[in-house]
Amino acid sequence: MNLHRNPLPVPQAVDRVMNYNKEGRSEAVPLKKSDGRRLAEDLLATHPVPPFNKSPYDGFALRSEDTKDLSRENPGGFRVTETIGAGQLASKPVEKGEAVRIMTGAEIPEGADCVAMFEICQTYEEQGVSYMTLKRSMDQDQNIIGKGSETEEGTVLVEAGTRINPGVKALLATFGYPEVKVYRKPKIGVFATGTELLDVDEPLQPGKIRNSNAPMILSQIERAGAEGHFLGKLVDDFDACFRAVSRSLNDYDLLITTGGVSVGDYDLMPDIYEKLGAQVLFNKVAMRPGSVTTVAELDGQLLYGLSGNPSACYVGFELFTYPIIQKLLGNPKPFHTRIKATLGEDFPKPNPFTRFVRGKIHYEEGKVMVSPAGMDKSNVVTSLAGTDAFLVLPGGTRGFKKGDAVEAILLEDQSGQEYFEEG
Amino acid sequence: MNLHRNPLPVPQAVDRVMNYNKEGRSEAVPLKKSDGRRLAEDLLATHPVPPFNKSPYDGFALRSEDTKDLSRENPGGFRVTETIGAGQLASKPVEKGEAVRIMTGAEIPEGADCVAMFEICQTYEEQGVSYMTLKRSMDQDQNIIGKGSETEEGTVLVEAGTRINPGVKALLATFGYPEVKVYRKPKIGVFATGTELLDVDEPLQPGKIRNSNAPMILSQIERAGAEGHFLGKLVDDFDACFRAVSRSLNDYDLLITTGGVSVGDYDLMPDIYEKLGAQVLFNKVAMRPGSVTTVAELDGQLLYGLSGNPSACYVGFELFTYPIIQKLLGNPKPFHTRIKATLGEDFPKPNPFTRFVRGKIHYEEGKVMVSPAGMDKSNVVTSLAGTDAFLVLPGGTRGFKKGDAVEAILLEDQSGQEYFEEG
Repeated sequence: MNLHRNPLPVPQAVDRVMNYNKEGRSEAVPLKKSDGRRLAEDLLATHPVPPFNKSPYDGFALRSEDTKDLSRENPGGFRVTETIGAGQLASKPVEKGEAVRIMTGAEIPEGADCVAMFEICQTYEEQGVSYMTLKRSMDQDQNIIGKGSETEEGTVLVEAGTRINPGVKALLATFGYPEVKVYRKPKIGVFATGTELLDVDEPLQPGKIRNSNAPMILSQIERAGAEGHFLGKLVDDFDACFRAVSRSLNDYDLLITTGGVSVGDYDLMPDIYEKLGAQVLFNKVAMRPGSVTTVAELDGQLLYGLSGNPSACYVGFELFTYPIIQKLLGNPKPFHTRIKATLGEDFPKPNPFTRFVRGKIHYEEGKVMVSPAGMDKSNVVTSLAGTDAFLVLPGGTRGFKKGDAVEAILLEDQSGQEYFEEG
Repeated sequence: MNLHRNPLPVPQAVDRVMNYNKEGRSEAVPLKKSDGRRLAEDLLATHPVPPFNKSPYDGFALRSEDTKDLSRENPGGFRVTETIGAGQLASKPVEKGEAVRIMTGAEIPEGADCVAMFEICQTYEEQGVSYMTLKRSMDQDQNIIGKGSETEEGTVLVEAGTRINPGVKALLATFGYPEVKVYRKPKIGVFATGTELLDVDEPLQPGKIRNSNAPMILSQIERAGAEGHFLGKLVDDFDACFRAVSRSLNDYDLLITTGGVSVGDYDLMPDIYEKLGAQVLFNKVAMRPGSVTTVAELDGQLLYGLSGNPSACYVGFELFTYPIIQKLLGNPKPFHTRIKATLGEDFPKPNPFTRFVRGKIHYEEGKVMVSPAGMDKSNVVTSLAGTDAFLVLPGGTRGFKKGDAVEAILLEDQSGQEYFEEG
């Protein structure tokens, strides 16, 4: 065991992880199950929009040339031959002196080249025949939304990598995608190490605590858009841990363990990576919490050794695992959105290392404010529950005052960014 | 049919919907399936945290009174009786002159009342027995995290109505909730009306378009945390529509139809509400788009008649259906977060009515910027795909310039607010 680890600055640690070059794979899913997934191919307009000349109003479709001499003094009468709603077609072309009563969204009948809105027409009946009177002239194409005027066939509407939201889903339906090609959810295996860990349904026992890191990580995995699989708890026994980890290596896209990466007598992960022959990308990061976060690589497979401390585990996941999940999901902006914000509360502690403080965002008069989610000790337990951002405080700083400009990393924002630090 | 509808201001329309007093119901779900659900009861600390006196460091647990005369000049030796890791218990109490090698997180053995960190101790062996030398005195309780010092048993940690995120899930696991009582997802039935509508897997036909509103609304329902059920397309036939709607009334918490609420010849929903004996809460709202949005109530059941126009349908859902879903989900802040923001692009159109423009949020130097998601006509098709906010432009305004202060409603932010307009 190497007690003298060399702490790596956070951006370099992130780079080492992101250099890992496994590609995401795709699969077809039914449109109705596609929410929140990411497109694995561009969404194309498979037909022009609108697909035919259509009426934007309720009115009468007619020939503009029949209206050219009309005015208040010289109104013209038209025989109304039929009525068509959206989805209905006229039974015959519109001829000289004729009009078709047409509803919003219906296809303009052959022969007609304009629509007069109801509001400017008078209707009457004579001997069982419907007529319409118009008192003004109409231009060719007036009140007609031309075929393809909104989008031409073949246009790329949404690019591969985009997350499917309600608007994207509407487009997929419009253009006839009953199945959608999306990136497959990365499969992530999770082990929790520690003899002290009880299952959530076990009663407390002296000296033991319930395993909360695994449920938390599984929830972070789900929030990131991947698929988590809990592989069980590992007691602090080298051979058992080694067997379990090596057995699971090939079944998952990424393998996460929580705990066992520190330098205590029972911190077995460093020796396990060594025996596996995995290359350790880093085993100490110049940050708080989570300095012992370890990532190793074996045959193109990443092994995450996250801290057993809940906050450190949470931060380690969001900084180092989240972006690689996004990469496997084809997300062109794989990093959490990082913004400039205003500190909402004093943060008096000095920061010898870069600190990622559990934070909460709110908005005040057009400004983004970020406050620590739990400053005092008694909030340690609940602060992660209120966290939707990390407050980033650079190393070597001596504390911050309310109102100071700081950086924040947004954990629930979907925009993302291309680089870790672009900000 | 009443062609002269009386437009209601948006806040009043929202009020009428929110006065509807159905209560959300609860159900128990397994912890592992609870992500994104809302707690139906307070989350309590079912035990003190920590549940026992524990060590925050790797070190030696011993009796402080044995150290009171120690100094660099007068070091003391202790016999190391055993080693305990987290989850292990000492086999016997610590007695005078003894120390237990203890790892982070382990329970302090009986007899011991302080922990000396590894860094300040020297260890050695003599005749197969381990010893430790200490060169300073220790205080009682030094380096011990006392039982209950972080949270007392019975403390409310997270309140009912809170959404389960990774941090809340960690707490549920810690405190032994293998099942969680959450609000049941409201069941929402969706009909799409319109003879022009094809299914997503049908080839285009003259005069027809594919049904995109239903998949879009179902996706909005899912994003809001509810459960959508597509009940089929309805052709523009009164009897068929009436039968379908009245048959489904009792099976869902809310019933949504898209289309058929305008004043065209085939807009049947107003007559259907009348024949059902439903009370129309409003059938015209002073806003664009979505002015024909209609909400009716029958025997405590809300019937949403959303516009057939995709943008109007989208806006109508987020303004009037989203908050009632949140209410049924026990969310104490049922409205979308509404913030002050800076306009990122000119919006030259005048606004005779309050306008909810499809918008996109981004951040610049600590300020929230909102830009229209698609200004020009060709973007109408794709603008909903890029939308994560509404830009709110008050009625009676004459257009806005880049840099103007505006309001924005955030569609993907989870904070929410208690009142529609608090801002």
